[in-house]
Amino acid sequence: MKKIEIERPSAEALIFNLIRTEGPLSRTDIVTRTGFSKSTVSLQVSRFIQRGLVQEEASEFGEGKKKRPLQVCGGAGYVVGAFLGMHKLSITLFNLTLDPLKEVYYNLDSVIEPETTNNFIMEKISNILDDAKLRYSDLWGIGLGFPFPVDFDQGIPDSPPNLPLWHLYPLCELYEKKFCCPVLIDNDVNVMALGESVAGIAQNTQDFIFLKVGTGIGAGLFLEGRVYRGSKGCAGDIGHIAIDGETKLCHCGNQGCLETITAAPAIARKGLDVALTEESYVLASILKKHGRIVAEDVGNAALRGDMFAIQIMQESGRKIGLVLAKLVNFTNPDMIVIGGGVAQAGNIFLGAVREAILGRSLHLATIDLKIYFSELMEKSGTIGAGSLILERIFSPPLFQETITKNL
Amino acid sequence: MKKIEIERPSAEALIFNLIRTEGPLSRTDIVTRTGFSKSTVSLQVSRFIQRGLVQEEASEFGEGKKKRPLQVCGGAGYVVGAFLGMHKLSITLFNLTLDPLKEVYYNLDSVIEPETTNNFIMEKISNILDDAKLRYSDLWGIGLGFPFPVDFDQGIPDSPPNLPLWHLYPLCELYEKKFCCPVLIDNDVNVMALGESVAGIAQNTQDFIFLKVGTGIGAGLFLEGRVYRGSKGCAGDIGHIAIDGETKLCHCGNQGCLETITAAPAIARKGLDVALTEESYVLASILKKHGRIVAEDVGNAALRGDMFAIQIMQESGRKIGLVLAKLVNFTNPDMIVIGGGVAQAGNIFLGAVREAILGRSLHLATIDLKIYFSELMEKSGTIGAGSLILERIFSPPLFQETITKNL
Repeated sequence: MKKIEIERPSAEALIFNLIRTEGPLSRTDIVTRTGFSKSTVSLQVSRFIQRGLVQEEASEFGEGKKKRPLQVCGGAGYVVGAFLGMHKLSITLFNLTLDPLKEVYYNLDSVIEPETTNNFIMEKISNILDDAKLRYSDLWGIGLGFPFPVDFDQGIPDSPPNLPLWHLYPLCELYEKKFCCPVLIDNDVNVMALGESVAGIAQNTQDFIFLKVGTGIGAGLFLEGRVYRGSKGCAGDIGHIAIDGETKLCHCGNQGCLETITAAPAIARKGLDVALTEESYVLASILKKHGRIVAEDVGNAALRGDMFAIQIMQESGRKIGLVLAKLVNFTNPDMIVIGGGVAQAGNIFLGAVREAILGRSLHLATIDLKIYFSELMEKSGTIGAGSLILERIFSPPLFQETITKNL
Repeated sequence: MKKIEIERPSAEALIFNLIRTEGPLSRTDIVTRTGFSKSTVSLQVSRFIQRGLVQEEASEFGEGKKKRPLQVCGGAGYVVGAFLGMHKLSITLFNLTLDPLKEVYYNLDSVIEPETTNNFIMEKISNILDDAKLRYSDLWGIGLGFPFPVDFDQGIPDSPPNLPLWHLYPLCELYEKKFCCPVLIDNDVNVMALGESVAGIAQNTQDFIFLKVGTGIGAGLFLEGRVYRGSKGCAGDIGHIAIDGETKLCHCGNQGCLETITAAPAIARKGLDVALTEESYVLASILKKHGRIVAEDVGNAALRGDMFAIQIMQESGRKIGLVLAKLVNFTNPDMIVIGGGVAQAGNIFLGAVREAILGRSLHLATIDLKIYFSELMEKSGTIGAGSLILERIFSPPLFQETITKNL
């Protein structure tokens, strides 16, 4: 017989999270939604108000206490969401209602070396706190997204294919020691997926795939309302799915991996080819001017109507779409959200992705399937990282500790 | 902000299901596991005992009441699990602890016509009750698995590719009216996956893919301890995933679908080819004797060392493995369980599947991945169907009604 998990979240964590995620709500709403007694709700709400964690709005209609809308006092505390790309760092300071208070961005030459990179990130987190006139003790938690597979429970990188020096680097521990608060580490696409579900185009969507197409390709799976990580935490690692018939060697050691055939470096390489042969006048002139071609150049040339660039973007989109078609048949999501640098290439790319998915999936799996670009784009990373740590510190097992320590 | 689901299962349903799935348990165990007070546990347990739903064993050590092991009285009620294949029907009568009391199997010429087929199934369910000297009113529920996509919430078939006449046929309603008890309908691979998780090789496995390879190919996804159905209930529908480079037309209208290239009919066809050319002596003699070749013949010839048959089985396994490799990278399961007729072909087939998966998946996704044949084989269907309805009738929303109606 299968084991069942018994979980009885404490009334206080349950009531607080209800106000946090769906407030403003009245005491009556909370009684209806939770099934707790009026006195339990009343008691817990009074405690939250007393601690300055929840505030009561004056009701417009001057009604009694029971109907006054309650919401979380955002300013009662702060969390940081940080997001590291291969050449970019974003950090956002959030309050408890996930309003962004300060956002900073940095370009990085290299993130190959973990010590240098993490010292830089920690310095910038300290700076953002200083700028907001906050102390370390005002920080309730930190969420971080990194561009490699992460052992989520341990908070350490696991066999990063692009950044081998980071393997088993004790990330979580490092940040926890420095900032003396709970820290969560996840991979980039998982936090981006969470960001889209919390504040992006996938709000109110229970099952979706977030696809990031940039220097690499990865997917975040959001199933039944939460991030699905798989047995070893590497679910969604689709960059190294094989495209049958392709033989180009990938840095992972296999041939014809999706990432190697379709991601930004492949697009740039194909762009360089048609620039060198001068088949594409637009790309040839960019090459002459800058001495190189990047994927963004190819995307821009496509937007300007260059046929060769259009062909390159379409080919990439079509091949990604053919892989997605298989995954759509397999997981039957409501929505696919595409983010990452290549997603900025616009409808030429998206059209090719769509066509390939719809042409190769079953009717039932695509009848209501939505395929969109991310609207949050790079912000999905920091919002997701911030949301990740907020969910954790207010989760039933940590709720009491969080409140006691910080208020 | 994302909505959170508030669910407060009633103490009685929670306590009963704990005893049902993990018993024998003592009252003390239950207090520890649930966090309910001793008096709540004691009260609920006494009620269950009074109603004859739970029984108390005399403790070996003559200890007090608190430590006496409690378990569900299996014989307090009955459910039926039925499983329909394209040419086969299995029905099992279970008691409340999912012990099989009677099992019957029928070969069917055709299941094309829903009315005839369902009248037959209902007649056979009635017969199994008669044989056990039970009345309709002794039946607490019926679970059924069918070989096509099912709208699980509505209990109706949805666009069956092989059995178009069944589209929207009101299955659930039909059985509920006839037997006056709760009925659940699901597709074959979902109930087989559930069966494997409850009583098969995937017990204690949280994340696995159940793959059925027979006349068709389908997968059941078991994620985080439960069947994952996807947005429209068609998750796992992998039979029509494209194999790039293959052009054979499939009955779904697309080309090169996994099912058309690798399932039993394709194996039989390839076997016929090498029988007709007499390349395979074994298959040629079977053709001469029986006037036809079925997939089982090819599997048997492979087991007897026929090189051409071995090649056919390996090719099928390898192609299935290549698709599974993509899905393993994507969902990172603990285990793959292979069932269905072709699975009986043994290690030649399984070896090819394994090799293809391991060769084309990421290290982290396969390091602890187990790839097994089902041990329950066809029984997984009826066990899963029985388990499905037991879980439903004892679920918190239905628990009270189930008890009141039946005891």
